[in-house]
Amino acid sequence: MRPSGRATDALRSVSLEPGAARHAEGSCLIRMGVTEVLCTASVESRVPPFLRGQGQGWVTAEYGMLPRATHTRGDREAARGKQSGRTQEIQRLIGRSLRAVTDLKAMGEMSVTLDCDVLTADGGTRCASITGAWVALHLAFEHCRKQNIMSVNPLRDQVAAISCGIFEGTPVLDLDYAEDSKADADTNFVLTGTGGIVEVQATAEGAPFTEDALTALMRLAQKGTAELFAAQRVAIGG
Amino acid sequence: MRPSGRATDALRSVSLEPGAARHAEGSCLIRMGVTEVLCTASVESRVPPFLRGQGQGWVTAEYGMLPRATHTRGDREAARGKQSGRTQEIQRLIGRSLRAVTDLKAMGEMSVTLDCDVLTADGGTRCASITGAWVALHLAFEHCRKQNIMSVNPLRDQVAAISCGIFEGTPVLDLDYAEDSKADADTNFVLTGTGGIVEVQATAEGAPFTEDALTALMRLAQKGTAELFAAQRVAIGG
Amino acid sequence: MRPSGRATDALRSVSLEPGAARHAEGSCLIRMGVTEVLCTASVESRVPPFLRGQGQGWVTAEYGMLPRATHTRGDREAARGKQSGRTQEIQRLIGRSLRAVTDLKAMGEMSVTLDCDVLTADGGTRCASITGAWVALHLAFEHCRKQNIMSVNPLRDQVAAISCGIFEGTPVLDLDYAEDSKADADTNFVLTGTGGIVEVQATAEGAPFTEDALTALMRLAQKGTAELFAAQRVAIGG
Amino acid sequence: MRPSGRATDALRSVSLEPGAARHAEGSCLIRMGVTEVLCTASVESRVPPFLRGQGQGWVTAEYGMLPRATHTRGDREAARGKQSGRTQEIQRLIGRSLRAVTDLKAMGEMSVTLDCDVLTADGGTRCASITGAWVALHLAFEHCRKQNIMSVNPLRDQVAAISCGIFEGTPVLDLDYAEDSKADADTNFVLTGTGGIVEVQATAEGAPFTEDALTALMRLAQKGTAELFAAQRVAIGG
Amino acid sequence: MRPSGRATDALRSVSLEPGAARHAEGSCLIRMGVTEVLCTASVESRVPPFLRGQGQGWVTAEYGMLPRATHTRGDREAARGKQSGRTQEIQRLIGRSLRAVTDLKAMGEMSVTLDCDVLTADGGTRCASITGAWVALHLAFEHCRKQNIMSVNPLRDQVAAISCGIFEGTPVLDLDYAEDSKADADTNFVLTGTGGIVEVQATAEGAPFTEDALTALMRLAQKGTAELFAAQRVAIGG
Amino acid sequence: MRPSGRATDALRSVSLEPGAARHAEGSCLIRMGVTEVLCTASVESRVPPFLRGQGQGWVTAEYGMLPRATHTRGDREAARGKQSGRTQEIQRLIGRSLRAVTDLKAMGEMSVTLDCDVLTADGGTRCASITGAWVALHLAFEHCRKQNIMSVNPLRDQVAAISCGIFEGTPVLDLDYAEDSKADADTNFVLTGTGGIVEVQATAEGAPFTEDALTALMRLAQKGTAELFAAQRVAIGG
Repeated sequence: MRPSGRATDALRSVSLEPGAARHAEGSCLIRMGVTEVLCTASVESRVPPFLRGQGQGWVTAEYGMLPRATHTRGDREAARGKQSGRTQEIQRLIGRSLRAVTDLKAMGEMSVTLDCDVLTADGGTRCASITGAWVALHLAFEHCRKQNIMSVNPLRDQVAAISCGIFEGTPVLDLDYAEDSKADADTNFVLTGTGGIVEVQATAEGAPFTEDALTALMRLAQKGTAELFAAQRVAIGG
Repeated sequence: MRPSGRATDALRSVSLEPGAARHAEGSCLIRMGVTEVLCTASVESRVPPFLRGQGQGWVTAEYGMLPRATHTRGDREAARGKQSGRTQEIQRLIGRSLRAVTDLKAMGEMSVTLDCDVLTADGGTRCASITGAWVALHLAFEHCRKQNIMSVNPLRDQVAAISCGIFEGTPVLDLDYAEDSKADADTNFVLTGTGGIVEVQATAEGAPFTEDALTALMRLAQKGTAELFAAQRVAIGG
Repeated sequence: MRPSGRATDALRSVSLEPGAARHAEGSCLIRMGVTEVLCTASVESRVPPFLRGQGQGWVTAEYGMLPRATHTRGDREAARGKQSGRTQEIQRLIGRSLRAVTDLKAMGEMSVTLDCDVLTADGGTRCASITGAWVALHLAFEHCRKQNIMSVNPLRDQVAAISCGIFEGTPVLDLDYAEDSKADADTNFVLTGTGGIVEVQATAEGAPFTEDALTALMRLAQKGTAELFAAQRVAIGG
Repeated sequence: MRPSGRATDALRSVSLEPGAARHAEGSCLIRMGVTEVLCTASVESRVPPFLRGQGQGWVTAEYGMLPRATHTRGDREAARGKQSGRTQEIQRLIGRSLRAVTDLKAMGEMSVTLDCDVLTADGGTRCASITGAWVALHLAFEHCRKQNIMSVNPLRDQVAAISCGIFEGTPVLDLDYAEDSKADADTNFVLTGTGGIVEVQATAEGAPFTEDALTALMRLAQKGTAELFAAQRVAIGG
Repeated sequence: MRPSGRATDALRSVSLEPGAARHAEGSCLIRMGVTEVLCTASVESRVPPFLRGQGQGWVTAEYGMLPRATHTRGDREAARGKQSGRTQEIQRLIGRSLRAVTDLKAMGEMSVTLDCDVLTADGGTRCASITGAWVALHLAFEHCRKQNIMSVNPLRDQVAAISCGIFEGTPVLDLDYAEDSKADADTNFVLTGTGGIVEVQATAEGAPFTEDALTALMRLAQKGTAELFAAQRVAIGG
Repeated sequence: MRPSGRATDALRSVSLEPGAARHAEGSCLIRMGVTEVLCTASVESRVPPFLRGQGQGWVTAEYGMLPRATHTRGDREAARGKQSGRTQEIQRLIGRSLRAVTDLKAMGEMSVTLDCDVLTADGGTRCASITGAWVALHLAFEHCRKQNIMSVNPLRDQVAAISCGIFEGTPVLDLDYAEDSKADADTNFVLTGTGGIVEVQATAEGAPFTEDALTALMRLAQKGTAELFAAQRVAIGG
């Protein structure tokens, strides 16, 4: 029995609220159970120096957590004067995941920055960020299309992410914080709407795990992301 | 006529949502028109080094703005590696304002950190932070009282803040962003429920202003904070 | 009785020494009692990026304190690697105050940086900085006029600042350190030679104060700055 | 045909030179083709604050690259004043990988820091760091055992890492820089001597990849690490 | 002919004003021609961590320059967020020089920090700092002796410093800025009152120089410091 | 008797390995006894901003030490977020020393960065860096000449450096760490192949030293560098 009482292959309740941030070109407030992440997409008509003059765009991400998003208050990174290694690792992952389904050439020399800010944390914030950021990015690209800044929406596919783990010997889907802190393996799968793998991050916590376990976790992730893709399509009104 | 169409002495619509942050000992999501600030109060059973062993508590504040809280995206302070002068000035003001109505002795050797994070900005974020933080702090102290960590609630009075300005020659209450960017004087009043002054910050934008103007702005602030005090009392269930 | 033995409306002895810094285009060493601040004005023929091509100038300020300006040695901010929130707040105030009396258009695309470095601190350093910086700025503008870099002196008015406070229930003018550390309200008034208000910063220390008290402090500030304006005129040889 | 001319399942020439750093308790200079990483293990008789008094040890890692380890000179991180996100991500991975095969309880309250410094880079530096660091760690633990600081060597298993990728549609083992920069998928496998998975990091470069491809890459990694485990055993004289 | 018109072996006019900083335990404002450095000595009854419990004291130094001490304004190091390499090099030199003539054991577990802040720069600021800091340190030690914090003055000898250089082929004493910027060799000599060498820093600017030149510069330095030692003795009232 | 058993005027065994870094335009691994420094020269076809458009080149240096180059592990400067004063002092010295024998005009608008990274430290790392960097620089310039980027090799002379000290009253050449930590004077001489002095840094450790001692140390340095010059000529194949 999982602490959450969920079936091994059950997601937490998922909610994707498009347009949650008034000023952004695209935005989405994603809730996975208690976890709550505000994703905004900000469009700028220029690209980073290393891409100038190459006729293509860029998509990047920043990630943050409000100090009291967690059970006990964490340091404010702005006050401490630097982003932790964990923060940087996560924001690099979000950026890579979104770029994997974006036709950068079709963007022209534009960039989009995805800000994923965790309002409440209860496990799975990096995965929720990716899933929500896709909606924000889609809406921002639609905004650009309507403004005739882009002629097509450069997104080629959906992308969503989910964490899985081995809890007391059993592979389970979508770990919440209580489960995550006791799981033997912590894996994050970033998959596309057409079944492709964008990223797999599988880490043993405690004992190493087997290839069979990895395969079982992959199955769960495929089931979970299928439900997330459906929710994304609803959110973008598709 | 104000850009907002409001009467010169009219607040924007005010909403104070207590308990908006699941993990914090006290919290309040305050909305002043479009401006939206999440205020959380985090209790710790220790004080900063300079107060150790003195049998009193401490209240401090940190302030931040999500990068896309604004019309165009601002830098993330955590990524830039430091807090701006403006951020530091605001968080010092919030901390001072709350301490002015707190009986630090009655807290015992406890501290409370108030995190005020702006989710959407449309002018008046520092004032909204103070007004909302008071609710969060009150709820956190009540929490401590129920846990028998404190025997009384150390708040001695209410505190709230409001900005006023001179718009096209006329003193007006509660500037939104469109009004603020064109106002000739920018003032912030931090007042107590019993009519005391905690802080006045009055700055000429462009031409210096007169003492009469300052008095008129004070009148507006007194009217505005009276409404905020009423809203605070409702929010704490009083 | 004040610790300083002064009448409630008496300034400390004031001395403004123009030209105290050999290399600067304008400079003034201001002494207010024991407090001693070296103010220099440095002219550059360019403006910050956000003003380029707009045909106007800029005036900005930086503030610092020698480590042993104080009774006990403070950290050197350069060694610690950042300026404190207090330092940033003060230098922003000095810059705003001087800009309020400067015709930035009349400067052309030039900037002036006012460096206010406290050699000895005994209360009132931010106010002394503003009063002294005005002299330095005036001299620098005169230098530019003599060099035909500017056709008129862009200063439209004088500006000076003074702190007032409530000491044992009585409003008093120009707090020194011993008085400041025991005062119930700490206020700084930045006023112009023609009676305008540029900035009021009034902060309760301990108990909130009343509107009447604020008015009484304003009266003292008006008296005090009148004397400072006279001293400034002597210093610039006017 | 791979640019390197190697068979799809062939490692580069591997060399593990134990004791390469004179002062360290354990060290290993690992060469994988042109890539060259100096791994040192430094033992200290204390643990980080979060582990104090818990009767267990800690293993951590730091990673760096000499500025001219690469084809064109990179910035020196010490001069730039911070470690990049990539550096932090890699050193966190190295630390996790080594801890996964270490019995931290058996260490007592000791820590080991593994420094992995890249002298020459030609792809696969993070994997080479893990493989070399294991040898350095083993030697450091043996040193502690001989000094009677530890009664047993706390390593429970071997750990090694290898990168694989999809090059022009074909899964290949141990990418060098020329291959890596053109590969469609970039994967790193951290495996144990007894067949367990410690970490899988699989990232699509360009198009997403399939689950079959991931399985094929896993097979290559298992073959490659088997050879690395043999080389490690020789290096520790076992 | 030197730009300054001085004889090759002539110092600039030297002035040492003891007690120039009101709050410091010891202080000295040194002027060498136009160059002006305020040196303060701050006593603390503790030592840095690496010396705790060893029954000896410590003397250290910090160096800074007001932004407009120079002909054109330099960046404020506190605002830039770090001390330059030059600053660090100089403050390390000052600290070493003073420690060379201090009996650290005789201090007990006390430390003295010497702050040398350049008010006006015209060449030779590091040498002036050392010469002035010796006076400040002597006065601080006398203060401690009078307070019965120390039983003897721990200074065993005088120390002073002077720069010499080769100007148009001729060795000259005490370079000012105009001379220094054209000199072929830039040397700093730190010598003791009893003829010992504490530090020699000789650097070729442009062409290397000969051993004979170094000897000639040493002669000049011996003559120059003899005069400085006399001035120091007057300053301490000896 | 020296701890090393060497004659007072004997260098440690010297080895200069040209081309030790595969990717650099010039490189040299220098060993002085146990001390081991990898020196690389990186050529770029641009100069720092302050030299642009002046038709001359620039040579600069950076210095670092692997954390476990030393007997006990030191902090990694990249992790601590800044370079120590010692590091900056050394890298400034290396840059100055190499520029002293380079015809910057003959370089054209090119720069060379010398990275000197200490792999093993046993005293004398700054001197070894200079001696080895000269070889790396020579090889980089030869590379530029062969590529027709430069028409002549801009090096006008050799430069090498050696430390000397007074050990138990006797001047000795080329201190290793054990000797250095007990020496009464620590001196570094940077000399040219034609007998010129580029830099002398002589520092008393403990008691001041005499001019005679300095002369004796200079003699030793001249003998030692003569041997280093011969080794450099062999290393560049001359």
